[in-house]
Amino acid sequence: MTQSITESEVRRKGKLAKMASYIMNVKTTEEKNDALGKIADQLLMEKDAILEANQKDLENGKQNGLSDAILDRILLNEQRIQGMVESIRQLIELPDPVGEVLESFTKENGLKIEKRRVPLGVVSMIYEARPNVTVDAATLCLKTGNAVILRGSSSAKHSNIALVSCIHRALEKSALPVDAVQLIEDTSHETASELFHLKEYIDVLIPRGGKKLIDLVVREASVPVLETGAGNCHVYIDQSADYEIAEKVVINAKTQRPSVCNAAESLLIQEDWFKEHGKPLLESLQNAGVEILGDEKVCEVLPGAALATEEDYATEFLSLTISVKVVKDVDEAIDHINHYGTKHSEAIITNDEQNAEKFLNRVDATSVYVNASTRFTDGFEFGYGAEIGISTQKLHARGPMGLPALTSTKYYIRGNGQIRV
Amino acid sequence: MTQSITESEVRRKGKLAKMASYIMNVKTTEEKNDALGKIADQLLMEKDAILEANQKDLENGKQNGLSDAILDRILLNEQRIQGMVESIRQLIELPDPVGEVLESFTKENGLKIEKRRVPLGVVSMIYEARPNVTVDAATLCLKTGNAVILRGSSSAKHSNIALVSCIHRALEKSALPVDAVQLIEDTSHETASELFHLKEYIDVLIPRGGKKLIDLVVREASVPVLETGAGNCHVYIDQSADYEIAEKVVINAKTQRPSVCNAAESLLIQEDWFKEHGKPLLESLQNAGVEILGDEKVCEVLPGAALATEEDYATEFLSLTISVKVVKDVDEAIDHINHYGTKHSEAIITNDEQNAEKFLNRVDATSVYVNASTRFTDGFEFGYGAEIGISTQKLHARGPMGLPALTSTKYYIRGNGQIRV
Repeated sequence: MTQSITESEVRRKGKLAKMASYIMNVKTTEEKNDALGKIADQLLMEKDAILEANQKDLENGKQNGLSDAILDRILLNEQRIQGMVESIRQLIELPDPVGEVLESFTKENGLKIEKRRVPLGVVSMIYEARPNVTVDAATLCLKTGNAVILRGSSSAKHSNIALVSCIHRALEKSALPVDAVQLIEDTSHETASELFHLKEYIDVLIPRGGKKLIDLVVREASVPVLETGAGNCHVYIDQSADYEIAEKVVINAKTQRPSVCNAAESLLIQEDWFKEHGKPLLESLQNAGVEILGDEKVCEVLPGAALATEEDYATEFLSLTISVKVVKDVDEAIDHINHYGTKHSEAIITNDEQNAEKFLNRVDATSVYVNASTRFTDGFEFGYGAEIGISTQKLHARGPMGLPALTSTKYYIRGNGQIRV
Repeated sequence: MTQSITESEVRRKGKLAKMASYIMNVKTTEEKNDALGKIADQLLMEKDAILEANQKDLENGKQNGLSDAILDRILLNEQRIQGMVESIRQLIELPDPVGEVLESFTKENGLKIEKRRVPLGVVSMIYEARPNVTVDAATLCLKTGNAVILRGSSSAKHSNIALVSCIHRALEKSALPVDAVQLIEDTSHETASELFHLKEYIDVLIPRGGKKLIDLVVREASVPVLETGAGNCHVYIDQSADYEIAEKVVINAKTQRPSVCNAAESLLIQEDWFKEHGKPLLESLQNAGVEILGDEKVCEVLPGAALATEEDYATEFLSLTISVKVVKDVDEAIDHINHYGTKHSEAIITNDEQNAEKFLNRVDATSVYVNASTRFTDGFEFGYGAEIGISTQKLHARGPMGLPALTSTKYYIRGNGQIRV
């Protein structure tokens, strides 16, 4: 238990977070909600200082030649701060999962065994650009009795420091330990890499950002990772599909918000349906501003379509581009999706009950839809009321994650001298 | 989708397992149980061939100078094969978790959302010595609708090949795909390393074996890992502890089966209790054959105790050795456990309700006991009826894992043209 003088920022803050986590995990729902309310109030009180810090990040970003899209993600304004405050107020209203008794039984020997929900301990979030994630991650972790180590990107550094200082001032007035929220200010690659392996203090690592960041964390980290992921989502139009439903769902899934993970990136069309309805459907996509990368059959009937490469079928465009392929039947569609998809959200448009069931059962994804848009895969849409992320892994949590995803379980066992024989 | 002629054994079998997993996940409980019954029958039928193959492993082991303990772990005999068969018969009786509807709701827009239990897909088990793990892992995975890739150790190679051939012959007579069970025959480090990163085909990796193997997998693997772990378990005797309960529990936790993960490795004693009862308690441990590594206070009163090092407090002895430390109070005990423990099973002996609650809430472990032996942390003792392992991680499953730990979930969503607005 000797302490080096040159202990790194990451280790020092990791240890503080771990110690705070042992205090956090016995705080009552009332204490946690009271602290969340104080954070909301403090954000409004310190609005001007936060916007001033954000202005520095924006100016640095412009000087460093960041794109308008990225600058927009860094940007805070009164409305966005109000948005954070609203999210916190909604979070306060959600039920606290901690302490829930999931199983309870008494063995023949008199041992009373209870399985209870407990906090994870220390959660570390590694994320990009958006400073609202700072407040979001901190408040979700506090609500679930966890301590949190935040590691944002250099482009939002001043905003993040201002937001976390503000959270600290609110926590000082609350019953929660100030150390429960730690910000790693050094945004070098070294600090990320240190977090990947800090098993001693970190229980779970959650990356939030683009595919490159997530892949890096999954590949490198020895700390357990909650993977929130990319979405190369498909819509498959089956032979029996209703034209109107097909058109409406495809256009919604592709264009309603193309930059998010549950937007469709690829369209598969059964060959008979394609002969009858392919051209008008694809034209209506073009009319909605969508660029089409198709296979040979598509390019034959559709002027303006470019030939899709193998690579295109594996690409999450996150823009108004879609890859299109004509397939023989639902089996080929399922194989294609299981090969190229990212196991996020997949849809079939069909009137054939048997093909619908086959698609539901055989497609390997968090959320599989019959006759509806992939855009519904979302914690709020599902009614979970808080958006920690959408897990694309199969362990722990899969699909939209509500507050219970930030908890673990623990067995509480009470006896009066029982021994094993 | 080009295929290299020099494709490795691991990739080739990984692909076969993945393809089989898409067939497995729609098999009915009856089909799966029928196949399990056929495996049990086949094991009895091929008993002689299995024992013959095992004999080769034992002979090779002797030539290679393996210890008697390891040779005993490799050994199969009629009784052990009968044990495998019994386990399979019990597994058949357990409820099938696959298909269970965990949540079901209809949204205002008419979307019907169901959250169902589904198989994980492809599970890979990396394990040491014991050939019974081969049958155990294969049948647990089949029961839960998964395909499995087995990678045992070279010391049990012939036994594993014989057992998997036997399973294959049983599967040929069943409705399940033979490819659902794959054995990696090449037991070089390279094949383990390949499995660590085969995200394309493997959904979850489960290491079963010693701490070194588990640490290696956790450190190296980019495939998600279900960590079943080491147990540096403590018993803490509080000021108010009843002497008889303390003695009975400590001796049971340490000596009833010292080689397993839920055995106690360290004893903490409150200082006042120690003054009154320390010497007789430790003497009765010595009389039970236990070697004591204690702090200075322990060594003062106990002839034959050796001085414990910092390292000793962090060691899982898995033998009749225990480290002992005198502590000021329950708080020091909790801090010590959270620092040196492996978050497995921890016990307090006390008559103080408040200290018991504090210990239950603050000790960070899968299973925390009041006045009972740590030895109860076990799937069979908890009534889960199948022992996949004891998870010491916080994600997915924590503590003894029943069949549901080998499943994931999936959202089934049915609509009639719903789009997001």
